[in-house]
Amino acid sequence: MEQLRADVVVVGAGLAGLTAAREVQRAGATAVVLEARDRVGGRTLNEPIGGGKIVEVGGQWIGPGQDRIAALAREMKVDTFRTHSHGENVIEFDGKLKRYRGTIPRIGAHVLADVAQAQLKIGRLAKTIPLDTPWTAKNARKLDSQTFETWLRRNVYTKGGRALLELSIEAVWAAEPADLSLLHVLFYTRSAGGFDLLLDTEGGAQQDRFVGGSQLISIRLAEALGGDGVVHFSSPVTNIEQDEHRVHVTAGTGLTATGKQAIVALPPTLTSRIAYDPPLPGHRDQLTQRMPQGSVIKCMAIYDRPFWRDKGLSGQATSDIGPAKVVFDNSPPDGSPGVLLAFLEGERARTIGRLPAQERKQAVVQGLARLFGPEASEPANFVERSWAEEQWTRGCYGCYMPPGAWTSFGDALRAPIGRIHWAGAETATVWNGYMDGAVQSGERAAREALAQTV
Amino acid sequence: MEQLRADVVVVGAGLAGLTAAREVQRAGATAVVLEARDRVGGRTLNEPIGGGKIVEVGGQWIGPGQDRIAALAREMKVDTFRTHSHGENVIEFDGKLKRYRGTIPRIGAHVLADVAQAQLKIGRLAKTIPLDTPWTAKNARKLDSQTFETWLRRNVYTKGGRALLELSIEAVWAAEPADLSLLHVLFYTRSAGGFDLLLDTEGGAQQDRFVGGSQLISIRLAEALGGDGVVHFSSPVTNIEQDEHRVHVTAGTGLTATGKQAIVALPPTLTSRIAYDPPLPGHRDQLTQRMPQGSVIKCMAIYDRPFWRDKGLSGQATSDIGPAKVVFDNSPPDGSPGVLLAFLEGERARTIGRLPAQERKQAVVQGLARLFGPEASEPANFVERSWAEEQWTRGCYGCYMPPGAWTSFGDALRAPIGRIHWAGAETATVWNGYMDGAVQSGERAAREALAQTV
Repeated sequence: MEQLRADVVVVGAGLAGLTAAREVQRAGATAVVLEARDRVGGRTLNEPIGGGKIVEVGGQWIGPGQDRIAALAREMKVDTFRTHSHGENVIEFDGKLKRYRGTIPRIGAHVLADVAQAQLKIGRLAKTIPLDTPWTAKNARKLDSQTFETWLRRNVYTKGGRALLELSIEAVWAAEPADLSLLHVLFYTRSAGGFDLLLDTEGGAQQDRFVGGSQLISIRLAEALGGDGVVHFSSPVTNIEQDEHRVHVTAGTGLTATGKQAIVALPPTLTSRIAYDPPLPGHRDQLTQRMPQGSVIKCMAIYDRPFWRDKGLSGQATSDIGPAKVVFDNSPPDGSPGVLLAFLEGERARTIGRLPAQERKQAVVQGLARLFGPEASEPANFVERSWAEEQWTRGCYGCYMPPGAWTSFGDALRAPIGRIHWAGAETATVWNGYMDGAVQSGERAAREALAQTV
Repeated sequence: MEQLRADVVVVGAGLAGLTAAREVQRAGATAVVLEARDRVGGRTLNEPIGGGKIVEVGGQWIGPGQDRIAALAREMKVDTFRTHSHGENVIEFDGKLKRYRGTIPRIGAHVLADVAQAQLKIGRLAKTIPLDTPWTAKNARKLDSQTFETWLRRNVYTKGGRALLELSIEAVWAAEPADLSLLHVLFYTRSAGGFDLLLDTEGGAQQDRFVGGSQLISIRLAEALGGDGVVHFSSPVTNIEQDEHRVHVTAGTGLTATGKQAIVALPPTLTSRIAYDPPLPGHRDQLTQRMPQGSVIKCMAIYDRPFWRDKGLSGQATSDIGPAKVVFDNSPPDGSPGVLLAFLEGERARTIGRLPAQERKQAVVQGLARLFGPEASEPANFVERSWAEEQWTRGCYGCYMPPGAWTSFGDALRAPIGRIHWAGAETATVWNGYMDGAVQSGERAAREALAQTV
């Protein structure tokens, strides 16, 4: 039974946990990181597809305003490149297929105007939400008492407008408008800086990608921490005990780590699957019962070459019937092989996710063929990842708040419990749910823990 | 390391688990029950208050139509008696205190009419919900896309009517109207047989009590199972592995139990805190991320005698300001000592639950003094139980469904995963969330498991 000691014990070697460990080291203190999996990176993951190439089956993009992940990537010498967007986009909408350039699809002006007025309203409301304390917003109770679906039905007047906004919600939260508190949508929108920023490729959260894949940042960060001596793999934490002087963290394998402070950097819903002694206060536990993870399957159809580019298509597409409602060209920087990234989000992930793999592939590929032509129906390879199936994640992209959670339990989100501090993208105030938020949360949790180790 | 063997391994010695074990034995098969606590009864618990008397700090009532728990109690020779309701009830409403007899409080006729039309609507809608499959109801998506708060604001026209219905929601679900899916409210209402049945004392779910306390049923049931040889205490289950032939259940203490089938009889949110091998499917796991437990603190102020009865008061009261919005006379059958039961529910449990115990007691007792007079301000004893703090329950009375959960995930609620079956009051179709539902669920899970042991 291996026994570790450090000033700070970090649970989880995703971006948040690794960032926290680095900040602890930078302050001259020691850290160990216990990770359930045999790898770092959490919800970022490179999957090899042969020929030295990879696809990212987890989080992958970086956009303007995401300064923390940008700085970290620079430091780790991970370059970025633009998401491929040359050529015309495709939209399948209301039974028709159309090509268009730029960000405004060629659909009815009244639908576009309807979506625009709704986004304007969302933007205006979002500006009233304090990022540190959304539950203190003006009308917080009222905003948290309704689903986004209720808001949609009242504030969006065209069927097309509702369909497009539903698609946007699914794309950002991997959940349905019925699942989400309006207050949460507003908080999250402000946390990113605007609804456009969440949705857009150029100028938005999907603008750039990492050369070598986003997981490379975590891999290099772990190396910089001092490798195996610091990060301990295949060590799923089962118990955290604290007393007057120390916190003791135990992994299922028998590994224990003792520190002055602990930082738990997991999705909130998973934090309560650890047994605590003394048990966590009810308020904290009940919060985590109300922070479900989203539902998404990331599918990549891989072709010898990006054939759609020859047709003047960007590879970006939206469809109101799906099953993949949002598609991107996700080819490596050199365009070889050609990769179409098709998202099954929200209800599509929940239903099509339970089909046999072959049927799911067929459904996705058929949709791609409608959007890009018959060449799409015969991919050379097909890669998918359903994050709900992953024992140590249980859903992606992140968690969302259903109605009532922010206003009744929000103050428990970051509040330390004795020597235990909480990190993870879900605890961020800026770019909540994104890699940038994960980095912010790790920095914040490390500061908190260090302040208490004195 | 103790190793047990049985045809069926049951996790949890609440009413559901014990009932399941009994049904297994009745069919001529063997069962063992692993219980985290050092007692049986789950969310039913007798607490001694001296002189051989007890108060029930968990579930306690039985009403008409709850035939399963009634039959079980009879079999266990646990008698019932009427909830004390002689005398006048008190209502504190809109700044005024009034006494009244029967079920209709003396408040404005327009408010009463408003509540009546709303209850009628709820009743009519509830009749359309299939209890086995609420997600297949006509308009299920629409009903599951809104909170009950949204429905209240649209369908109840007076401020007073909304306040009374809010109070009803809190009393039944220990949650706020903003927390609950409308579909869930309708399902639950139908599951009980009507909204009145949920709320009422005489003729409703609060009509009768158990002599000796509700936990006595579980205590005798455990004895009837064969005592310690069958029920194993202080054995919190941490792991459940299944293979082609068997299921292996491991408790934190090192105890293992191997069976042909397993029945997990815990609140759904807790079922995912066990580690499964192979891991549970994402669909099941994500369901349990969306089934939070309610928030309630059961407080009992104990007096030498039930002084309110001398004043012609029943001890039943409602208040629109609280903090205890619902109060009952909870004295033992012989009326000695006098016990006022004051519920802190939903938001009150969440806020006042975090005050120091002395402040919480003061807030509750002050409220009782407003309702019943100054004698209430000096109880001889004060007993409270916050079920959110309980590591092996994490909230009461039961769980509720936020919007979206029933329609996206409801089909995973009872679906067995290989050799693992699910019991517990939350999985019941009739009297969901009640002791009666727990018994139904245990019987159903045992039938399922037995059918597979052949």
